[in-house]
Amino acid sequence: MDDLRNKLLFQVTTQTVSKTQAKLSIVGAGQVGMACALSILQQHFSDELALVDIIPQKLREEYLDLLQGSLFLKSKIVADTDYAVTANSKLCIITAGVRQKDGLIAQLQRNLESFKTIIPNLVKHSPDAILLIVSSPVDIMSYVAWKLSGFPFSRIIGIGTHLDSALYRFLLGQKLQINPTSIHAYLIGEHGDSSVAIWNSANVAGILLADINLSQASSEGPAIHKLVIDSGNEITSLKGCASWATAIAVTNISQAIMKNLRTINLVSTFAKDQHGITQDVFLSLPCILGSGGVCGVLKQILQDEEKAKLNSSANDLWKMQEELAF
Amino acid sequence: MDDLRNKLLFQVTTQTVSKTQAKLSIVGAGQVGMACALSILQQHFSDELALVDIIPQKLREEYLDLLQGSLFLKSKIVADTDYAVTANSKLCIITAGVRQKDGLIAQLQRNLESFKTIIPNLVKHSPDAILLIVSSPVDIMSYVAWKLSGFPFSRIIGIGTHLDSALYRFLLGQKLQINPTSIHAYLIGEHGDSSVAIWNSANVAGILLADINLSQASSEGPAIHKLVIDSGNEITSLKGCASWATAIAVTNISQAIMKNLRTINLVSTFAKDQHGITQDVFLSLPCILGSGGVCGVLKQILQDEEKAKLNSSANDLWKMQEELAF
Amino acid sequence: MDDLRNKLLFQVTTQTVSKTQAKLSIVGAGQVGMACALSILQQHFSDELALVDIIPQKLREEYLDLLQGSLFLKSKIVADTDYAVTANSKLCIITAGVRQKDGLIAQLQRNLESFKTIIPNLVKHSPDAILLIVSSPVDIMSYVAWKLSGFPFSRIIGIGTHLDSALYRFLLGQKLQINPTSIHAYLIGEHGDSSVAIWNSANVAGILLADINLSQASSEGPAIHKLVIDSGNEITSLKGCASWATAIAVTNISQAIMKNLRTINLVSTFAKDQHGITQDVFLSLPCILGSGGVCGVLKQILQDEEKAKLNSSANDLWKMQEELAF
Amino acid sequence: MDDLRNKLLFQVTTQTVSKTQAKLSIVGAGQVGMACALSILQQHFSDELALVDIIPQKLREEYLDLLQGSLFLKSKIVADTDYAVTANSKLCIITAGVRQKDGLIAQLQRNLESFKTIIPNLVKHSPDAILLIVSSPVDIMSYVAWKLSGFPFSRIIGIGTHLDSALYRFLLGQKLQINPTSIHAYLIGEHGDSSVAIWNSANVAGILLADINLSQASSEGPAIHKLVIDSGNEITSLKGCASWATAIAVTNISQAIMKNLRTINLVSTFAKDQHGITQDVFLSLPCILGSGGVCGVLKQILQDEEKAKLNSSANDLWKMQEELAF
Repeated sequence: MDDLRNKLLFQVTTQTVSKTQAKLSIVGAGQVGMACALSILQQHFSDELALVDIIPQKLREEYLDLLQGSLFLKSKIVADTDYAVTANSKLCIITAGVRQKDGLIAQLQRNLESFKTIIPNLVKHSPDAILLIVSSPVDIMSYVAWKLSGFPFSRIIGIGTHLDSALYRFLLGQKLQINPTSIHAYLIGEHGDSSVAIWNSANVAGILLADINLSQASSEGPAIHKLVIDSGNEITSLKGCASWATAIAVTNISQAIMKNLRTINLVSTFAKDQHGITQDVFLSLPCILGSGGVCGVLKQILQDEEKAKLNSSANDLWKMQEELAF
Repeated sequence: MDDLRNKLLFQVTTQTVSKTQAKLSIVGAGQVGMACALSILQQHFSDELALVDIIPQKLREEYLDLLQGSLFLKSKIVADTDYAVTANSKLCIITAGVRQKDGLIAQLQRNLESFKTIIPNLVKHSPDAILLIVSSPVDIMSYVAWKLSGFPFSRIIGIGTHLDSALYRFLLGQKLQINPTSIHAYLIGEHGDSSVAIWNSANVAGILLADINLSQASSEGPAIHKLVIDSGNEITSLKGCASWATAIAVTNISQAIMKNLRTINLVSTFAKDQHGITQDVFLSLPCILGSGGVCGVLKQILQDEEKAKLNSSANDLWKMQEELAF
Repeated sequence: MDDLRNKLLFQVTTQTVSKTQAKLSIVGAGQVGMACALSILQQHFSDELALVDIIPQKLREEYLDLLQGSLFLKSKIVADTDYAVTANSKLCIITAGVRQKDGLIAQLQRNLESFKTIIPNLVKHSPDAILLIVSSPVDIMSYVAWKLSGFPFSRIIGIGTHLDSALYRFLLGQKLQINPTSIHAYLIGEHGDSSVAIWNSANVAGILLADINLSQASSEGPAIHKLVIDSGNEITSLKGCASWATAIAVTNISQAIMKNLRTINLVSTFAKDQHGITQDVFLSLPCILGSGGVCGVLKQILQDEEKAKLNSSANDLWKMQEELAF
Repeated sequence: MDDLRNKLLFQVTTQTVSKTQAKLSIVGAGQVGMACALSILQQHFSDELALVDIIPQKLREEYLDLLQGSLFLKSKIVADTDYAVTANSKLCIITAGVRQKDGLIAQLQRNLESFKTIIPNLVKHSPDAILLIVSSPVDIMSYVAWKLSGFPFSRIIGIGTHLDSALYRFLLGQKLQINPTSIHAYLIGEHGDSSVAIWNSANVAGILLADINLSQASSEGPAIHKLVIDSGNEITSLKGCASWATAIAVTNISQAIMKNLRTINLVSTFAKDQHGITQDVFLSLPCILGSGGVCGVLKQILQDEEKAKLNSSANDLWKMQEELAF
């Protein structure tokens, strides 16, 4: 068909294609990776999306499905088991091994092995990319990605407590009958049970929630924080992991990077030298995200108890990381 | 918290809430229903989305997941096993029983039983709603929904060949290196293997593809039509059904209805008296979609062979429908 | 054509149109009103937009212009000099008399006369609408709209310091190299020279800007506030008024109302009994905006000096309002 | 402030900024240029927008206005009288001299002089850019831009009959009560009074409008075409030019180029060797727009009369072009 098209349907006036402006890759065509793909494609900030998975049949069925619906998506979509398909990505999102099946340690080992293939392959084809880690346990896998990639830490981002914070703000918003985007509250540190709620600066229009003593009890903030943790655990036990929420969070982070927005997001970043942390660990802190990845880490003023929790998480993570065989 | 909020955080100035402007319900919190929810929420044309499922735990896990990510979605989200949660919907999307597990007839029987609960409950709480049927087999289930609802047929819409057409246009676009939205080609009739490609009016900018003899063979159009059918069958055999594509198609149809766009979409509509069809069957034809549902059915000029195929589909569907025990 | 369409092009299946879900009216087809129209239409949250102006030719030229481009806008657009065209609006945006030509008092008198026609006509055709006042001087014109409409004050909103705050945040963001949407700072009170910057709660991720002593001088916040005032005055002297900025601000406020978002916005609201104010005046305070209009007014904790400025503005406004002949 | 920010508010982790991905420039900060800016910024497909104008004060007032509202726009905005600000643009939109004040010839002369400054400056700073010409008379100014730039013709695009076609489709849609995006009709050739309506291929869902004899008179298509011409002339006589419609058309064309969509648009392109045209003229034909600019020109099958009109326009344009002193 192609040779005739020129003569019959239209005259080709140029074959030039500008180098792809905004290319993004997603590793892992599971439920989370594909939900990320749909979510990102509908926000129209990528010009090309590459999907990679190690299982050819899984990749094919998801790719076919996405293509079938792609009529109104404004992006080229490609898929392959070969990482060459990811070449020249600005951002690589790694969702392989998100779901927790058989305990944390087993998951960690399995994902470490996967990353030994994934990371060098991504680095080879996109040496300037930002890596966004969604795989669990996210803080440790971000460290693993950093070690395996040899990238400066600013180009490694873990999805971290972005999800936890989103739910925290949603629940506070529901209580207060105010849109959660107008509620400024922060969960930092380790993703999951050990996350740290910074209650003393949580505010609405600059009004501290701690000051207004929401429920005449000092436990309002912690109570909602506990709801967040319980809800996260409930989702993990029911579904293995949140997929829709993850997709929305990944979309939000990706847009900040791809469009160099320099917005502040709670993501897992290299935390050494922050708040007294001395180990090479990744923990979530409020970060400025832009085309360089993590462009800055905000210097929150933490209370001693909060610092202690952060450092405790750092110790826990470091212990596990010491066991890893690269 | 609520009684104090007034005094401490803000002064309530009005409790008035305008009746929900744009409410949508999705029945079935499976993979397809939830992908539809994510897709619709990110297009921001619903102000309230209600989810219903018969399995409380499934509904809860998906609802929790969606809520966790809902920070940036501009819609209220509610979920319940009780259909009261759907009250005053403008549009109800029924995705229950999409996946084909055990053959067409078994699926049909199972979905008929489900609809006996679903449809009257939706009708009770939203007597003026439009029903959008995604459940399989979609043409027959649209007929079932029409019979059970007592609604005028203009308010019953099956997703029909919207999906088939989307892939058809995508594949033609890929061949021609032209964006599929600029390719105007139509698959009508029964969703799936028996769909009818209207090759003689397929055009790009008014240039008939049949005229330009794309591949020097008269079989170009049919060949791509075959690819569509094969691809649909491949997805069904691999995944049970397309979920991402369905979500995008449902979003497109829903937007046309919710915003009264009067765009033309290939959807399953009451086909009696069209192209010589004499039975009470639903088949896909190009329809004008607006706030009244199917506002008009385009009068394509079909060739005898195309009409014959449509009528053959009508006969096949009617035979199956005659067997149904309401 | 219409009678034949049925027979030849398509079969009409229903004439039912659901009552317009999301209708919006704009009074004043000047530069500001039309920029608002374009901006709102491109955000796709209105289903119908009505334009009104008293000068038929001006209205016609702007309406024709907008129609010519409306191919991809997903909204019905209507225009008339007769207010019947605005019937059943959820929100009416009044932009008449924005531009300042001949001094404040003359403008006030002229706009008061206009409002005597505009407000009763809008009220007559849309008795449940929210009124969004853009006309200058905005705080007094909001009061005028309240008196003339007989509406509860929650349904009268002035654009107020939304614009001033937007620029304040932008300039802080530029200094800090952080996206302004991540900077939480507030200008309240009277729109323009007398606006009050609440510097002590201005924060980024909960970190108070006052604490970090940005420039080793205590004057950083006030200096930027002065830039905002100067810039506003420069625009007024150069252009008469900001049109693009106003359009974006109006779009933001309108979306919060039309989609019942309950986000917090700085808008002019009935300020009596807030912060010691005793007069019937409208001043900007952080408000919760939803389908009821101003659904709540946040209770900021102000310093004595800030309260004094607010009360001084209230006195000034009240003095002018006492002179008005309704 | 900058030196302290690092120590007090946040730790800078990288200064790397990826080279701007999607930069766009607009020459001319008049009503049309600024409406284009607002419209493009709200569609979020540019990462950086540069504004240039020769009058510093005009540029400053419009830039200040836009900045004041830029809180929610996701793009860097820069402005200068020096073309260096446009460096590395992918697309340059030239709106200088759109408004017709003193007759076609005077306008042509004036705009030719402007282009002698504009074009070489744009070429110098963005040697790979696409040039989108909005300035009037658009077909001739596209030719002028081609000659002055030395670019291959595929990188010169005139807005051409995009506007005329948009209104044509809108008016047909209004008649048929069908969304204009579902109506496929084409006005080609010279922008304005001499445009050529290709009525014989105008269709809805493949149904030829000529076949259904809409109004029992063969004059329906021409009648609507006449309305388009009259409406264009009315806007020109009332306003000088359409600004809102132009902004929407420019946004649509720009998105196709920036995101490499390969959609079909009616734009002014180098028409030599098309339909028997022998002169170096630009006329509107259905073009495939992508990151290379005009990637292909569709080969419509025209009737003799239509070809004659096109050739007559080509002659008229060429005569005027021969008079131009470069």
